[in-house]
Amino acid sequence: MRQLRPSTIREILKVAAQPEIISFAGGLPAPELFPVDAVRAAADHVLTQNGREALQYGPSEGFPALREWISDEMQSRGIKSSPSEVLVTNGSQQVLDLVAKLFLNPGDVVLTENPTYLAAIQAFQALEARFVPVPTDDQGLIPEALPELIKKHRPKFLYTIPNFQNPTGVTMSGARRQALAQIAAAHGLIVLEDDPYGKLRYSGTEVPPIKHWDEAGCVLYASTFSKTIAPGLRLGWVAAPAEIFSRLLILKQASDLHTSSFDQRVAFAFLTGNDQSIHLSRIRGAYGERFGVMDAALKQEMLAGYRWTKPEGGMFLWLTGPAELDGLKLLEQAIKHQVAFVPGRDFFPAEGGSNYLRLNFSNSTPDRIREGVRRLGALCRAG
Amino acid sequence: MRQLRPSTIREILKVAAQPEIISFAGGLPAPELFPVDAVRAAADHVLTQNGREALQYGPSEGFPALREWISDEMQSRGIKSSPSEVLVTNGSQQVLDLVAKLFLNPGDVVLTENPTYLAAIQAFQALEARFVPVPTDDQGLIPEALPELIKKHRPKFLYTIPNFQNPTGVTMSGARRQALAQIAAAHGLIVLEDDPYGKLRYSGTEVPPIKHWDEAGCVLYASTFSKTIAPGLRLGWVAAPAEIFSRLLILKQASDLHTSSFDQRVAFAFLTGNDQSIHLSRIRGAYGERFGVMDAALKQEMLAGYRWTKPEGGMFLWLTGPAELDGLKLLEQAIKHQVAFVPGRDFFPAEGGSNYLRLNFSNSTPDRIREGVRRLGALCRAG
Repeated sequence: MRQLRPSTIREILKVAAQPEIISFAGGLPAPELFPVDAVRAAADHVLTQNGREALQYGPSEGFPALREWISDEMQSRGIKSSPSEVLVTNGSQQVLDLVAKLFLNPGDVVLTENPTYLAAIQAFQALEARFVPVPTDDQGLIPEALPELIKKHRPKFLYTIPNFQNPTGVTMSGARRQALAQIAAAHGLIVLEDDPYGKLRYSGTEVPPIKHWDEAGCVLYASTFSKTIAPGLRLGWVAAPAEIFSRLLILKQASDLHTSSFDQRVAFAFLTGNDQSIHLSRIRGAYGERFGVMDAALKQEMLAGYRWTKPEGGMFLWLTGPAELDGLKLLEQAIKHQVAFVPGRDFFPAEGGSNYLRLNFSNSTPDRIREGVRRLGALCRAG
Repeated sequence: MRQLRPSTIREILKVAAQPEIISFAGGLPAPELFPVDAVRAAADHVLTQNGREALQYGPSEGFPALREWISDEMQSRGIKSSPSEVLVTNGSQQVLDLVAKLFLNPGDVVLTENPTYLAAIQAFQALEARFVPVPTDDQGLIPEALPELIKKHRPKFLYTIPNFQNPTGVTMSGARRQALAQIAAAHGLIVLEDDPYGKLRYSGTEVPPIKHWDEAGCVLYASTFSKTIAPGLRLGWVAAPAEIFSRLLILKQASDLHTSSFDQRVAFAFLTGNDQSIHLSRIRGAYGERFGVMDAALKQEMLAGYRWTKPEGGMFLWLTGPAELDGLKLLEQAIKHQVAFVPGRDFFPAEGGSNYLRLNFSNSTPDRIREGVRRLGALCRAG
């Protein structure tokens, strides 16, 4: 029996899913932007043209045509890539599980940002990992801190979300990415670069992935279709150097044989049958607008002593309250006023963090964002 | 880094997938029996009626309506069950992974039939399990042998496929199932009952599941839609007592958040929109016919010294050759004559077994079965 930590976020989501609650919790994309009609056409096409293949067992690596599409797409993100390095997974969450299984034994160290993605903490804790935070600032994690941490803790890998990090919304600068890749190569450090939000940039300029600078084959690059098509399809991937790929593949086989043949083919038909740039710019436009609305509302509602990040993409901002703020207590109050968020504490694998809130802005309309922030502001002022 | 054993079966499948090869390898259902049109109608219905929900994140437990359907279905199999005990997984393979994660630490013992399902060996080996075989005969595993094995090895659980076992096709008798449940209860032994083929009975009489006799909450019951709808959807489930369920659920969250919302809803729409008994009796009829053809062809082609099982359902029979038969060598020859099977060796977690072959009869037409067995017979007579 391994260490298990029940997911507060999931329990909150159950309450927050009630339609009368304005939810800044969860990490849900806006469902009104899902390409439902195009997915329906894609499903129909797949079952009309290749029904038997779409319903049969398939290769553990993934549907070959989708692996090629993903490889091409990564090239366009600045990554040298080949389809043979692409493993299709059940969302990028499964990448965390497979990488944890491959590298971690009880007590092994993982380096992470602090705070970091809650479900990554869960995936690594399932293997009884220890977490060591890497110092960060508003440019992301600080690569110069790594050599000492590597020497002291001999980590099995570093986990990082360089674009619009979950939960902070912070983006790692290009210079730091390059420095990180160099330090990883020099010290033989495996880097798991998790990039679920990279395509959701609504302002600023794109920064090449860490893997762009990876000459030594130290970087595993993970991403997903959850934010660019739809999360219900559970489609993600990891690109890994050949030797690591072959071991991840065996673990994928043992985990669930392969990812849904049907969903993979539907996604491929959707991706090749529709102009992705139109679809993506709709999402980016809406999320940028919603961030702007939330930012403006926070300016209006929150007292001095509260500050928040200004992400250039993604789905979350990170609000820091005065030291005495108790996020969990605030949530209890907020639920009574029918507004929800995720208290920051659970995003810290190592220590504290009770005076932080994570606010999601992708899943509410501008009007509801204004109203929700108004209620939150009133509670903070009263508290 | 854990013990990894590459899957011979998957490598063979890649060769065997070439259309000119008559393949008795793999465990593929007959794709010509997939309900492609009904699945297309179901997908269209789901995306027309509930497109946003079908494409959004969903609960880790699974789609509630599908969990209810599954619970009802298990009742009809003779299992006392509630929807709250049903966890929907990515095929029943994922059940093996989750159960392994929950119970196994390196060196822990799992009791299994010998031979047993290849991918179960892989899933448990990923956690560095040790395998201890339970004695079996043509009625399945022998429960009376368990108390001594439990005392000696303190196993974390027993893994068994009581219906039309993979690879042997053997079915455990009802009396033994009842005895097994009693012994498990008396000794606190967890039993993982894997029942992927239970609905594929084409002759003989149905036997209630082991879980039917489970008063103590020792039995986890796993099954799948891979054989009754289609494997490409990757939908399976486990029914587990509340305390174990809650821990499996946390591991499911950490593994991949949840199973495809889309596939779950499509399956539910298919299950409720079509008469399952008609669909199932088509599959049973075809598989029964194909088993009969293979059995008759083997009688005609194989020399004395070869014998094989006569399963009453499922997709496999198990052929035992003379002691000097080398299944792997025979496969090399067979591939040259464009016929494939899986050598028995890999199904034995502990020792030997080179003079066995597993033959799949579900995935080839009667004519190709006759021709494939003719070629195999010629090779065996020549060898």
